[in-house]
Amino acid sequence: MMDKEIFVSLLQERQFKAVRSILHVMNAVDIASLLSELDDKELALAFRLIPKEEAAEVFANMNNSLQTYLVEMFTEKELKEILDDLYMDDTVDLLEELPANLVIRILDSVSQSKRNMINVLLNYPDDSAGSIMTTEYVGLRQYMNVTESMAHIRRTGIHKETIYTCYITDKRRLIGIVTAKDLLTAEDDVLIKDLMETEIISVNTHTDKEEVAQLFTKYDLLAIPVLDAENLMVGIVTFDDAMDVMVEEATEDITKMAAMSPSEKSYFETSVFDHAKNRIPWLLVLMLSATVTGTIITRFEDAFAVIPLLVSFIPMLMDTGGNCGSQSSTLIIRGIALDEIHFKDIFRIIFKEFRISMIVGTILAVANATRIYLMYHSPQLAIVIGFSLIFAIMIAELIGCLLPLCAKRIGLDPALMASPLITTLVDTCTIIIYFSIATMVFHL
Amino acid sequence: MMDKEIFVSLLQERQFKAVRSILHVMNAVDIASLLSELDDKELALAFRLIPKEEAAEVFANMNNSLQTYLVEMFTEKELKEILDDLYMDDTVDLLEELPANLVIRILDSVSQSKRNMINVLLNYPDDSAGSIMTTEYVGLRQYMNVTESMAHIRRTGIHKETIYTCYITDKRRLIGIVTAKDLLTAEDDVLIKDLMETEIISVNTHTDKEEVAQLFTKYDLLAIPVLDAENLMVGIVTFDDAMDVMVEEATEDITKMAAMSPSEKSYFETSVFDHAKNRIPWLLVLMLSATVTGTIITRFEDAFAVIPLLVSFIPMLMDTGGNCGSQSSTLIIRGIALDEIHFKDIFRIIFKEFRISMIVGTILAVANATRIYLMYHSPQLAIVIGFSLIFAIMIAELIGCLLPLCAKRIGLDPALMASPLITTLVDTCTIIIYFSIATMVFHL
Repeated sequence: MMDKEIFVSLLQERQFKAVRSILHVMNAVDIASLLSELDDKELALAFRLIPKEEAAEVFANMNNSLQTYLVEMFTEKELKEILDDLYMDDTVDLLEELPANLVIRILDSVSQSKRNMINVLLNYPDDSAGSIMTTEYVGLRQYMNVTESMAHIRRTGIHKETIYTCYITDKRRLIGIVTAKDLLTAEDDVLIKDLMETEIISVNTHTDKEEVAQLFTKYDLLAIPVLDAENLMVGIVTFDDAMDVMVEEATEDITKMAAMSPSEKSYFETSVFDHAKNRIPWLLVLMLSATVTGTIITRFEDAFAVIPLLVSFIPMLMDTGGNCGSQSSTLIIRGIALDEIHFKDIFRIIFKEFRISMIVGTILAVANATRIYLMYHSPQLAIVIGFSLIFAIMIAELIGCLLPLCAKRIGLDPALMASPLITTLVDTCTIIIYFSIATMVFHL
Repeated sequence: MMDKEIFVSLLQERQFKAVRSILHVMNAVDIASLLSELDDKELALAFRLIPKEEAAEVFANMNNSLQTYLVEMFTEKELKEILDDLYMDDTVDLLEELPANLVIRILDSVSQSKRNMINVLLNYPDDSAGSIMTTEYVGLRQYMNVTESMAHIRRTGIHKETIYTCYITDKRRLIGIVTAKDLLTAEDDVLIKDLMETEIISVNTHTDKEEVAQLFTKYDLLAIPVLDAENLMVGIVTFDDAMDVMVEEATEDITKMAAMSPSEKSYFETSVFDHAKNRIPWLLVLMLSATVTGTIITRFEDAFAVIPLLVSFIPMLMDTGGNCGSQSSTLIIRGIALDEIHFKDIFRIIFKEFRISMIVGTILAVANATRIYLMYHSPQLAIVIGFSLIFAIMIAELIGCLLPLCAKRIGLDPALMASPLITTLVDTCTIIIYFSIATMVFHL
């Protein structure tokens, strides 16, 4: 990795030749992250020293605030050059984040046809295949042969994001796919028609981008064609965008599972205020529902007035119940996200979790009852805690598996049904079970 | 998707021609999942009807128990055919899971050179780049021109997992990379030497596979070269394996964050007993540590003997503290996994979490104190709960961000420091804070 200090000092000493040759050997992704650490003036200077053919790729890899700054600073000519080299999907990503005046500036400097295309792409829903697709793909005809196809790719391929999957269309209807590997390993005069694969995995412009990403992992795809409502081919999603979606979706699930609103920005990019805003609503809801558990406890005031020791087991029971609930809910939520678990499996899952909870419950109950008997020499107390644990764990694992499945069924995000919500529910059940058993055993 | 019933009935009616033509149009991944639902005898029959050139790919996509069954059932000739078509990385994956007698059978039926290669690959650590790499890549020489290179690819490419990145070596030392796109869009007589990229992103055989996957997402790679200890090129990792690693690692983190030992198998593949085994150890540890909180409560017996209402706020305070702790720990753990957060950021993070906790704490405290004042008309109680909340949230977010960072620092997996462990720790702090404030305010 290039040292920032050295780079900045070369820049300040106006050693442009040295800077240029450094930028020449560096990878676009690394240049983008190096430039992100510069201040505005240095950034503008350094950006202009990037080899022309790499500038658009560096630009595409920068974060939003730097892109905005650069667009503001570009001359008409520079802006046009970058936009010409930028892939359609990166252009749309950029426009989605820019302030309105800069959007207008950009739309003014592209051609009419590109402007129309941009407007179509901007209108796809945020989480759809349409929003992450690119319209630049290699199209071939079925009566071309391999030599003609390769000549076509040589002519047009340089500006396409991927040339490794080529699409054969007939009146804009997708009829086949041919990979660059097929072309490179076939004889020169074979017709595309005889080479192409006709069983095609495709998605619709409105397909959820998470589903698109799942298809990539399932079928090890490099690109997937996107069809519109009339089944005409409109673009492709490439594997790099699918990988980004996978990472984003996992982050989103993990964030929701910890009772936060997901943020598209990284930890440091999110302001203190936004962090607080993402966390407070769920905390408030969960806090108020936890008071239900509190209210239930007051109903058993007499019990712990007689045996104050009972109170000291509340944290252990609540925590264990909560942990069991979050264990099973986590496995179910992840299984749903990976398309391994479906609502139709509900009875299989309930039966499985029931058996698991019997094993887990018994072992934990025996461990704890033994400890309590040894410490307090009270067989009743050991029985109360032991049975409370078994029942609490059973209920916790049941709630833990049912809630995400039902959420999925009614179209909610299963990740919302994760540990915190389940903990609160399980707490209430645990307390009721515990004090009911205690009241019975101790005749309170 | 092919209907299983129809497929099985065609199979049973011995309509082999129909079955063959169905299998012919299906994708290898879909065939594998269809065959997974058949019973053993049907499976053996159906597998032999798969088009020969697809059999190895279908086999590679099957789960372990089916692969084992098929290997047992294959004749010498069938086994040899499959092994010839199987990529090296899939062969190694297979061998890692097979019982010893079948491993010997397989090693006996491959050539001496392949056997040596397999033995080398089997010896790489489980989570290293070496364990997921394949040794079959396209190698070119620097003094070949584009036409010669394409002829070379045509001759040898068909058996390579990817031909889209070609590697130029000199005495087995990697000196450059050329993509199929470069070749397809270049003039015929250009020398590889003048076309190749010499700034190469590579990994070592012992690089952690999670790091390898991170490089794929960062640089949008299709394949990455793997070098041995002497810096000689030994293989490549392809993007499909990197995507699998990413999904696996996210699942592993999510599982650990819910206090379970991760399992390589899916929910249904894991037996009830194994599920219990994965969950019990952490539950026991957490349960026993929760008793610490319980013991602390008994120290405040006098307080809630005088004001029993105090007990009813325990669940709400514990839950809120736990939730805040898991919110911040989750963000930090994910940030570390995505390489966005590092130990050196520790003071920045502490300061950020401190400010967040002030906002979150104040809002939650005001909301709750108001509710309590309105319900119980006790300003003291409102003050006790309000301040307990603020301090509990501050400590929770501090523990939540510190623990994963410190775990990372000392080489532990940060995901282990997630909600359940933090909840238990935070509980203890919350109870101490709560009763200390209560004792002070009510002069107990």
